[in-house]
Amino acid sequence: MDNTSKSKFVLLTGGAGYVGSHTIIPLIESGYEVVVLDNLSNACKGGEGEKPVPISQVEKLTGKQVTFYAIDLLDYNSLTEIFDKHEFCCVIHFAGLKAVGESCIIPLTYYQVNVCGSINLFLVMKEHNVKRLVFSSSSTVYGEPQFLPITESHPVGQNLLNGYAKSKYYIEGILQDLCNSDKEWFVIILRYFNPVGAHSSGTLGEDPNGIPNNLMPYVAHVAVGNIPNLNVFGNDYNTIDGTGVRDYLHIMDLAEGHVSALEKMLKSNDSGAIAINLGTGNGYSVLQVINMFSEVSKRKIKYEIVGRRSGDCGSSYCDASFAKEYLGWEAKRTLKEMCEDTWRWQSLYPQGFSTKT
Amino acid sequence: MDNTSKSKFVLLTGGAGYVGSHTIIPLIESGYEVVVLDNLSNACKGGEGEKPVPISQVEKLTGKQVTFYAIDLLDYNSLTEIFDKHEFCCVIHFAGLKAVGESCIIPLTYYQVNVCGSINLFLVMKEHNVKRLVFSSSSTVYGEPQFLPITESHPVGQNLLNGYAKSKYYIEGILQDLCNSDKEWFVIILRYFNPVGAHSSGTLGEDPNGIPNNLMPYVAHVAVGNIPNLNVFGNDYNTIDGTGVRDYLHIMDLAEGHVSALEKMLKSNDSGAIAINLGTGNGYSVLQVINMFSEVSKRKIKYEIVGRRSGDCGSSYCDASFAKEYLGWEAKRTLKEMCEDTWRWQSLYPQGFSTKT
Repeated sequence: MDNTSKSKFVLLTGGAGYVGSHTIIPLIESGYEVVVLDNLSNACKGGEGEKPVPISQVEKLTGKQVTFYAIDLLDYNSLTEIFDKHEFCCVIHFAGLKAVGESCIIPLTYYQVNVCGSINLFLVMKEHNVKRLVFSSSSTVYGEPQFLPITESHPVGQNLLNGYAKSKYYIEGILQDLCNSDKEWFVIILRYFNPVGAHSSGTLGEDPNGIPNNLMPYVAHVAVGNIPNLNVFGNDYNTIDGTGVRDYLHIMDLAEGHVSALEKMLKSNDSGAIAINLGTGNGYSVLQVINMFSEVSKRKIKYEIVGRRSGDCGSSYCDASFAKEYLGWEAKRTLKEMCEDTWRWQSLYPQGFSTKT
Repeated sequence: MDNTSKSKFVLLTGGAGYVGSHTIIPLIESGYEVVVLDNLSNACKGGEGEKPVPISQVEKLTGKQVTFYAIDLLDYNSLTEIFDKHEFCCVIHFAGLKAVGESCIIPLTYYQVNVCGSINLFLVMKEHNVKRLVFSSSSTVYGEPQFLPITESHPVGQNLLNGYAKSKYYIEGILQDLCNSDKEWFVIILRYFNPVGAHSSGTLGEDPNGIPNNLMPYVAHVAVGNIPNLNVFGNDYNTIDGTGVRDYLHIMDLAEGHVSALEKMLKSNDSGAIAINLGTGNGYSVLQVINMFSEVSKRKIKYEIVGRRSGDCGSSYCDASFAKEYLGWEAKRTLKEMCEDTWRWQSLYPQGFSTKT
């Protein structure tokens, strides 16, 4: 394998998931060769001998093949085989369990999958001298915001209330130590705010198992008639209309953020572990999202105001200036586009990827 | 296996190590049946077909057999087999890598062994409905002391400078989540201050690989002539004589603390994860330790004052009152006994367990 081809192979762990699958598109558009591994614990499998549905959709959209392996990061030997087979310039590590509520019920599983899966990956990368990594972290590592907007220097790891957030925080800590121990590593830690939306084609989107955990897919399911109504948790926060404010980010903006991080890595001589917020820097309230979704879908979204949910804060939004400065990336898409693209996907695929088309 | 016998079987992970092996003695004296597992990565192996040397020494001292398995916590299947074979009332989890300096050089290995090894253990315990655990944590989770004496409510996890301390902190966090998720778990987290000394017989003691990391074994090696002299890192701290002050604790006091924790667990209806300091509550300076060791060994200990070592603090000692209140345990042995017992061991076994006797 010559250097030219070597420099274009990127491994995406969890690449069949929501953020991973959308990220393949701009990677392919930027000329990268994408190899996906995923254990399919939370992604729609394809038919016999077929790739998972999100990967097939991506292949249709891009007209390019994506190499796919159904393996688990806890399976060290299979992971080693993939690294033996391909020379990667970089790994983008999406794989992990992500349901905050579930992480409080089965924490050991969350730590095993997220933390031990990551450690296995890093060990195999080290053995194969692949020392460039983009890691999917989360704004949940900040805990309850001590100030707004949240900058990257905001304290992390304090009073984290769930295993999901803690597992991300621990992995960040492990990456810091790894980079301190070996100056050849260059790791970009992306702290996502609230990814929403879908590819503008409407053929690729978020397909949560069971009842959605997050606002936007929940609203979309109510709009399309899968769920009768929506609970709004608290309208007595100190926000524009009393409902919680979050920094929603279009999934394709987020996807492009990963390409920017990857290109930074390949061009720059920096090293170490660098944490970067990915968000728009703007917050929208629950009611603002509901109203916008109602407007674009022309559907009434039935909702009910109920009590605050423990662990929720009033407002969370980021200072997005470091991403612009360091990666040259900023979010471009509006709340309206987030709702329009979600609605297009939800209308075309009311049952997600398992919709008969 | 009837309930009476069941209630007496205790699994010690890392039971061939320094703290583990000493803890077997008071456990056996209290009537427990001890099963040890250890991967022997850091313990003196026995001859062909023999148990590891520390285990054989314990058997000689107690006149009882200790069941021993040479397995690694990362080997899930072997771990499961041990739990299939024995019904444990409790696990005391000592196993882990513990060299602070090394953890900065090979952090991934530290996280894999300590964190993933622990997660495997907890998963297997859960599957076998063994939900009582004593965990070896460390005062290093407190980071640089913000106040003295350090109580259990002192902040943890802030600005931890090495993978060893962070791995202990992460395991504590995982145990908290585990106990929150299932109220049947009862976990006692013991935060050790500075364990030193040896069994009073002089036949069991600390046997570090290579150059010792900690003061007391270093002093002992200088006294016995294995190492020419000792570096004292800084004499300009705000302490009695300018040298660093630590809360040294006799290993047999520490060992008895584990028995107290175990008995608390078996008698009490408490649940959850409870962190407890184990220390004397008194601090001694480096020079006080050197002088006492010199007095009891009647040897001159050559030392040299050098600059402070990064990451060291001036003083660290605990508030030991919660251990007394909750466990009914307190340290009984003096600094003089710590030095006498260390010296007896070091004189009898100048090369540790590999000394030809």
